Amino acid sequence: MLRIAIVGGAGRMGQIMAECLGERPDMTVVALVDPNEPRDCFGAQHLTSVQELARELDAVVDFSTPDTVVATAAWCADHHVALVIGATGLSAQQRIAVEAAGEHVGVILAANFSIGAVLSERFAAMAAPYFERVEIVELHHDRKVDAPSGTAMASAERIRAARAAAGRVTPPEPTERFSLEGARGADAGDGVRIHSVRLPGLLAHQEVLLGSTGEGLTIRHDSYDRRSFVGGVALALEHATTHTGFHFGIDDLL
Amino acid sequence: MLRIAIVGGAGRMGQIMAECLGERPDMTVVALVDPNEPRDCFGAQHLTSVQELARELDAVVDFSTPDTVVATAAWCADHHVALVIGATGLSAQQRIAVEAAGEHVGVILAANFSIGAVLSERFAAMAAPYFERVEIVELHHDRKVDAPSGTAMASAERIRAARAAAGRVTPPEPTERFSLEGARGADAGDGVRIHSVRLPGLLAHQEVLLGSTGEGLTIRHDSYDRRSFVGGVALALEHATTHTGFHFGIDDLL
Amino acid sequence: MLRIAIVGGAGRMGQIMAECLGERPDMTVVALVDPNEPRDCFGAQHLTSVQELARELDAVVDFSTPDTVVATAAWCADHHVALVIGATGLSAQQRIAVEAAGEHVGVILAANFSIGAVLSERFAAMAAPYFERVEIVELHHDRKVDAPSGTAMASAERIRAARAAAGRVTPPEPTERFSLEGARGADAGDGVRIHSVRLPGLLAHQEVLLGSTGEGLTIRHDSYDRRSFVGGVALALEHATTHTGFHFGIDDLL
Amino acid sequence: MLRIAIVGGAGRMGQIMAECLGERPDMTVVALVDPNEPRDCFGAQHLTSVQELARELDAVVDFSTPDTVVATAAWCADHHVALVIGATGLSAQQRIAVEAAGEHVGVILAANFSIGAVLSERFAAMAAPYFERVEIVELHHDRKVDAPSGTAMASAERIRAARAAAGRVTPPEPTERFSLEGARGADAGDGVRIHSVRLPGLLAHQEVLLGSTGEGLTIRHDSYDRRSFVGGVALALEHATTHTGFHFGIDDLL
Repeated sequence: MLRIAIVGGAGRMGQIMAECLGERPDMTVVALVDPNEPRDCFGAQHLTSVQELARELDAVVDFSTPDTVVATAAWCADHHVALVIGATGLSAQQRIAVEAAGEHVGVILAANFSIGAVLSERFAAMAAPYFERVEIVELHHDRKVDAPSGTAMASAERIRAARAAAGRVTPPEPTERFSLEGARGADAGDGVRIHSVRLPGLLAHQEVLLGSTGEGLTIRHDSYDRRSFVGGVALALEHATTHTGFHFGIDDLL
Repeated sequence: MLRIAIVGGAGRMGQIMAECLGERPDMTVVALVDPNEPRDCFGAQHLTSVQELARELDAVVDFSTPDTVVATAAWCADHHVALVIGATGLSAQQRIAVEAAGEHVGVILAANFSIGAVLSERFAAMAAPYFERVEIVELHHDRKVDAPSGTAMASAERIRAARAAAGRVTPPEPTERFSLEGARGADAGDGVRIHSVRLPGLLAHQEVLLGSTGEGLTIRHDSYDRRSFVGGVALALEHATTHTGFHFGIDDLL
Repeated sequence: MLRIAIVGGAGRMGQIMAECLGERPDMTVVALVDPNEPRDCFGAQHLTSVQELARELDAVVDFSTPDTVVATAAWCADHHVALVIGATGLSAQQRIAVEAAGEHVGVILAANFSIGAVLSERFAAMAAPYFERVEIVELHHDRKVDAPSGTAMASAERIRAARAAAGRVTPPEPTERFSLEGARGADAGDGVRIHSVRLPGLLAHQEVLLGSTGEGLTIRHDSYDRRSFVGGVALALEHATTHTGFHFGIDDLL
Repeated sequence: MLRIAIVGGAGRMGQIMAECLGERPDMTVVALVDPNEPRDCFGAQHLTSVQELARELDAVVDFSTPDTVVATAAWCADHHVALVIGATGLSAQQRIAVEAAGEHVGVILAANFSIGAVLSERFAAMAAPYFERVEIVELHHDRKVDAPSGTAMASAERIRAARAAAGRVTPPEPTERFSLEGARGADAGDGVRIHSVRLPGLLAHQEVLLGSTGEGLTIRHDSYDRRSFVGGVALALEHATTHTGFHFGIDDLL
């Protein structure tokens, strides 16, 4: 039974982690660390700082802010407690501080803990060298202010790299007549086109479409809820508590 | 039992009509009219010109060229035989000649005889006033030289008109940051975006996606084979043999 | 500006209605009626019974229990206030009481206020007579205890009725060899097959697939959130405040 | 430039191979072997038996019948020519004879040369241990006489095996109330449900749907045309002409 503390435990992701990790048979959440009062403690103790944490912990999950993450990493290194970090936006210097903790304990930092998203990207990259053309359709709610999505950009880059490594070159675009500009989407390199759909109601969805003579392969990922991160965090916890060292992303753990 | 002749019977669509209309229990194909020898006559007689047609016909289906269509229309008007035309590219003058035949017999001219495509467009227009935003994703094989497809342009126009008639205005685009140009597709008016996917393997597919708070409606049409026109031609034949007058499109017959 | 009270305002749907109807420019929510304290009043007054309601109301929205609905209907009839009911499970007698209120004011009772769901069902029924076969795939989260879903059963019945009315008969099932029982789903009559997928992560989704030679039409509805009911309730409010009489369902209002 | 002969070259797959392999820049089809006259020779020589083949061949592709395949394998072993076999229905003894040829030359026997289908199955098996539940929806034209499809059965078995190997157990089915039998599809073991849709118009399509809390991953394969086998055959030819030994399937070559 892993004994876990959640830093940023009053935040949106922290609350989800407190609720969902606590429901797993192999984990118990003993403390929520946050300067703010959590809406729900889910049976754990509320502390305002990592300094107050007891030593009988197996791991810390941190979904707080970059500054706090650095303090958490130092504490974990000192007390030999594994660390899984979901906070984003670390500066280069903050990242170095976090990586340093990996010399003493298991530390995993990831931007995306969704196992489905990570596998989607991997499968797209694995399949890309075997198909003539690849396009991406990503669909999000209409409050999203950027296009294409960061995930689509990252997927396109992995697809492009996999094709380049295999010596696969996308033939030139045969489309010649455009009645409307923009119809063919954005070219993310090597002819990998990205199409961004924005509609109210939608959550976060992505399809990678691969086509060759006579057949098509589609890899679709649907994110319905942030609780989709729980599985990936649990996987990272298992790894960090059994392996010393710093690790970026959960792709290698799958 | 309708007795039918097919003009342009040696062409690709003519051969499909000869085979598939002939399989229907309520029709018999008695003649294929074409200057070229048909690959298969499917039990019908081969004639080289409409002038050779016997009078005991109920209807003519014409998938030939504009010039021939005008001659066919004149013959049908003279001999009181219904006419269904699938040939495209008629000039204004040729169209007038064809419409004139409708004063004597039933004449139906249509660009698209696919019942699924026609219903898709109708449903999209019916639903459009009730949703906040609408986008179209059309997917075709990579030999298609134009984008967006003509069908997508026509669908977008009907959607726009239906929304305008209902006083529905699409709110301004919230997307602000574009890492790549073209990601949001082509704006076909009133914020109806069209995204054109081109991949080998694909045939002809279109999705109209409608979104509102908490829900989405998708109307998808897949064209796998030109034989999908047979149902619409049969419907047009039923109508043309029972109603005098010129009719454009099969939408009103459904 | 419609002045609205929400009965059952402390319940899950009541809270959503209070929040979302209140955000519309043409409506203001003045009171939440519920024996329980609402988590949020969204600026409205909290009352414990309809008897306490002031007369200057335009309409009442009731998402409470059958017993309360009957009392609400009596109050609305007496005070000439329109009524929209989303509560389910009324007995025959309770339904009669509710319908009686329709002699004095506009009353709309509906099981499903999702405009997308209602249109999906309508389009499926409209298209069904024109296709050779129809199947339904409905996909829900894995906590759903019944299969097929009530919506799928209702859709199948409307499809069957539309085909019967058009004299369309589904040809006998050609499948002969079953390596596993149940693969072809449930037969809901006239060969309309229903397939129920149950997976964690999913919300509520339904696809009606219609097929004929060479083409397919798919009508898909995705429910992501109960806020999808707000549009339909607003539509019902518009109608009930302008038309006396009882109405079941919102289909006719679209 | 690989010099290739096609046994069964007058058959449907043989004709596709003759046309499509011949269009590749790295291959030339020099002979079609078939007792029947091929409809089109695509510039190759027509022979009636493998005995007539010249020695300057690099490889033989055999899409004929089991008996012929055995003779082809013997000839290839004797003349040191690589062999790729797409014929199905070999008896155990015929298979032994074919495998024996692999002691002398490269021999690849496969039931499915579609790269997309092979990758789909592999990805489904790779992802299966990470998700709570998995279901398969396979969709085929309505002339298919068996259900579920052989591909779906094979996919389900690989998914089951991958989950078992990872110690993943599917929780018991929560569905309790069935208004119609068969709605939940066929159980292919470990709760992997298969749903078989049969509609005219459809070709051959399969979706593997994987679900966990808050997210879903879908792997879809669409077969539009038998020419989808060409890529896999070309891959097998590359391998067989460079590696001695018998190989079943193309999965390991990807």
